[in-house]
Amino acid sequence: MKFPSHIQNLIRLFNRLPGIGPKSAERIVFALLKKSPAEVLELSQSLARLIEQNQYCSVCRNIDLRDPCAICADTHRDRQTLCIISKPQDLISVENTGLYRGLYYVLWGHINPLEGITPEDLQVPQLLSRLEYQKPSEVILAFNADIEGESTGLYLQELLGGKNIPVSRLAKGLSMGSELEYADEITMAHALRGRVKM
Amino acid sequence: MKFPSHIQNLIRLFNRLPGIGPKSAERIVFALLKKSPAEVLELSQSLARLIEQNQYCSVCRNIDLRDPCAICADTHRDRQTLCIISKPQDLISVENTGLYRGLYYVLWGHINPLEGITPEDLQVPQLLSRLEYQKPSEVILAFNADIEGESTGLYLQELLGGKNIPVSRLAKGLSMGSELEYADEITMAHALRGRVKM
Repeated sequence: MKFPSHIQNLIRLFNRLPGIGPKSAERIVFALLKKSPAEVLELSQSLARLIEQNQYCSVCRNIDLRDPCAICADTHRDRQTLCIISKPQDLISVENTGLYRGLYYVLWGHINPLEGITPEDLQVPQLLSRLEYQKPSEVILAFNADIEGESTGLYLQELLGGKNIPVSRLAKGLSMGSELEYADEITMAHALRGRVKM
Repeated sequence: MKFPSHIQNLIRLFNRLPGIGPKSAERIVFALLKKSPAEVLELSQSLARLIEQNQYCSVCRNIDLRDPCAICADTHRDRQTLCIISKPQDLISVENTGLYRGLYYVLWGHINPLEGITPEDLQVPQLLSRLEYQKPSEVILAFNADIEGESTGLYLQELLGGKNIPVSRLAKGLSMGSELEYADEITMAHALRGRVKM
């Protein structure tokens, strides 16, 4: 015995989303049944709008309601600095520091030969030809401090360094609130090697 | 800095669903962006269908695509037995045993005076007048083995017992795979008290 087809189908679709198992999907669908029809319709329509309204900026590949995006179109931004990130969520993290006024480029992933994700998939050649033409004063590589992020960073560092484009990467060390006692060895090594004169 | 409004809005809506925090909602929306438009539209349309097509059975209050539902309309079911459950998911659990051929009644919740959920909210009076008229040979109370389930069961047991309707409840004891060493005291007490002659 299963649920009626309209319920079963919706459970299946929610189950395909990341972090939602079959039981969570079931719980979500029954929670939706208890909501007002207006709320369910709002979710349905917002999903439809995600397809209709979403734009990818042709300059930086970020998402926005228009092309070029708000950041690329902002004439007050510093056009000599470019920050390369792997996804829009990371752009928000950098923006929220309030310290960066340059432009961005979204790779939409990490280079991962094991999973068959090549620099071509992430449109790195297009980025490179743009950088060779624009000659930015600095390119900041802002990737996760994990294996995928590190290897993508290393690849771009060699590629851009070879073209005489100044490249920097985010500092590594102790996160705020870290206790030395519990810090892993690699973090401690980064903190020690990158120590700063006071 | 936030995401564009169409993204932000969808994150907010997913965040309202049970078990989905703000970060999971963000992850889901960006996963949707990577899916094909057809897949996102399918989810959007299935949600709209949930409102349009969903029916509540006027006999048992279960959900289905028609009223009365498939179970209530099935003339081969035993109309002398009624199983009272708190939600459609529990009905599926009972059905999947293949041991029950009677009818159901869905309460859509547990009686919980602390949260202001009264028997009237769960349409218990309507159920009672139906039972007084139909005189079933057995009413099975199939609720969770937790405080809410127990107290709802106790309430109905007294109410129906007072009307001379034979009431039973699910057996309590060790779940399959339980190890005595790790069983809690209440479960062990139920297992011992309910021991069966071999």
